[in-house]
Amino acid sequence: MTEVAAPRRGRITPEREAELYAAVLDLLREVGYDSLTMDTVAARTRASKATLYRQWGGKAELVARAMRHHKPGGAADTDTGSLRGDFYALLSHEDDTDLEESSALMRALAMAMHHNPDLRRAFRELIIEPELDELNRAIRRAVDRGEVRADNSALDCVPHMMIGALITCAMIENRPPTQAFFRSYLDAVVLPVLGV
Amino acid sequence: MTEVAAPRRGRITPEREAELYAAVLDLLREVGYDSLTMDTVAARTRASKATLYRQWGGKAELVARAMRHHKPGGAADTDTGSLRGDFYALLSHEDDTDLEESSALMRALAMAMHHNPDLRRAFRELIIEPELDELNRAIRRAVDRGEVRADNSALDCVPHMMIGALITCAMIENRPPTQAFFRSYLDAVVLPVLGV
Repeated sequence: MTEVAAPRRGRITPEREAELYAAVLDLLREVGYDSLTMDTVAARTRASKATLYRQWGGKAELVARAMRHHKPGGAADTDTGSLRGDFYALLSHEDDTDLEESSALMRALAMAMHHNPDLRRAFRELIIEPELDELNRAIRRAVDRGEVRADNSALDCVPHMMIGALITCAMIENRPPTQAFFRSYLDAVVLPVLGV
Repeated sequence: MTEVAAPRRGRITPEREAELYAAVLDLLREVGYDSLTMDTVAARTRASKATLYRQWGGKAELVARAMRHHKPGGAADTDTGSLRGDFYALLSHEDDTDLEESSALMRALAMAMHHNPDLRRAFRELIIEPELDELNRAIRRAVDRGEVRADNSALDCVPHMMIGALITCAMIENRPPTQAFFRSYLDAVVLPVLGV
């Protein structure tokens, strides 16, 4: 279900870990990254700051791991036999509520990431790269099947199209992204540009 | 050069207005929207708060007008005779430094917009809608020329593709967007999906 690496010391249960992560994400949505402190996390979760630092090292890693934990699916690649099917399967990991939350969290972190190299590194490693890997595996299968040409010049831009749609939907259309929006975007933009 | 509407009272000179806007954008990049107050703007620019409120009504409109003022070009549409030419012309309004600044400002505002309906409204009216209008005029010309089919299902997604590329370049590639990046994105993604 989750790909979060084991905590550094085996001191807390998976249930407690999940509870802590949920509290971190709540705080992040409420106050943003800059105002979130280990003190507020400790107070909200009745954990000791020493435990938080021992387990996660610092705020950036705690936040990135909380987001990673929250991401559903991703454990096994779904090979549906077509690129459209694989993209739809990737998308179905997150229902509309998940998508709205992801979109809100991305916005909450976009500014902070710019100013915090630690957060940027943790976010890239735990969120962006696993997502890119999943996308790229689906694309590689499509190339191997002959569904997409290996020299299609849009291949490198698929992540920009997908993540861009997630962020801009809220900005341009003033509404959170939904599964239906993503499916129509895949059909109108991403798949045609790949020649599918 | 600029499409900013006339200030509410003709009390300040265009030079003074430009100076105020520049200070607002500096503060925005330094401290973010939430921490920016009319007090800090007044102190930085040696203006009175009364003047700021009289001219702009409030923080949201001041910030959105500062961003709008900062946007180069846009006064006249360039009709180059091809969609690629028009898109390239739109893009050439902003050099690499402008693009980096726009990208940083968008990140600075993304979170704040979510929580501030006033800012969202001002930003939509002064930034998003004029940009969409420009894009849509270029697209309409291409449809009229027969370069793009009127029923192309990606027509509504062009803004998502363009603005998404601007934001995600920094996020995925960990570098600010450049003219070169945008041109290759236009050629690899946007124009092919429109059948150009």
